[in-house]
Amino acid sequence: MTPHSEYRLRPIGVVRSPLTTRAAAPRQGSEGAPEAVIEIDPAFAGALAGLAAGDEAILLTWLHLGRRDVLQVHPRDDPARPLTGVFATRSPDRPNPIGLHRVRVLGIEGTRLRVGPLEAVDGTPVVDIKAVLGTGDG
Amino acid sequence: MTPHSEYRLRPIGVVRSPLTTRAAAPRQGSEGAPEAVIEIDPAFAGALAGLAAGDEAILLTWLHLGRRDVLQVHPRDDPARPLTGVFATRSPDRPNPIGLHRVRVLGIEGTRLRVGPLEAVDGTPVVDIKAVLGTGDG
Repeated sequence: MTPHSEYRLRPIGVVRSPLTTRAAAPRQGSEGAPEAVIEIDPAFAGALAGLAAGDEAILLTWLHLGRRDVLQVHPRDDPARPLTGVFATRSPDRPNPIGLHRVRVLGIEGTRLRVGPLEAVDGTPVVDIKAVLGTGDG
Repeated sequence: MTPHSEYRLRPIGVVRSPLTTRAAAPRQGSEGAPEAVIEIDPAFAGALAGLAAGDEAILLTWLHLGRRDVLQVHPRDDPARPLTGVFATRSPDRPNPIGLHRVRVLGIEGTRLRVGPLEAVDGTPVVDIKAVLGTGDG
């Protein structure tokens, strides 16, 4: 039923952030997360053409500190909340720990993008950047 | 600079849709895409707890028909539009062809989710489902 293949993600860049531990990171960018720099692998420089300071963008990251064997969590680590399936949450613990972050591009210098706010920790691999499609966007 | 590892995505389900070719698929869900069924691998059934009909959700898919060697495209395949880096677009052709789809859950029967609208073609692997976080969400 489910496709049997696995798919290989190649990092296209990495997050440079003052956040260094998952415990220190806000749960969402809107909850006081700092600015960060995305260092894009120069091999992908051409894919940045058209991105400009001021744009909103969606970053996809690989949440390398996430646990892939967790199927249910207490939302926001609050034991008073009932166990909930990770597909009904934004927990970084999930079978494929892909992070989804809506950010503003604050500046671009070559293959370095200054963005914010971003709750991902320093060293988090970046796997994609996408344009935002209006307010109803995913 | 960029992390050297690759990361392995495991499909958690598959799209069942009347759309069978990329040419027939609308570019975005909002452009007349049909309903679809997401068949979730029963191994991940526990991760669905808390999802309910009426919810909005974000699906991440692996756009298996996408070309990973394409760094620039004419947006919407319109040759009159200048070549643009794929990171400034939503092209399915990109280094890591992850699709991002905001959908409504129309019904849940066991591990089958009826959702819509969805522009992904039949057989597209699903790699994650996430809760939507308000209107400013990624």
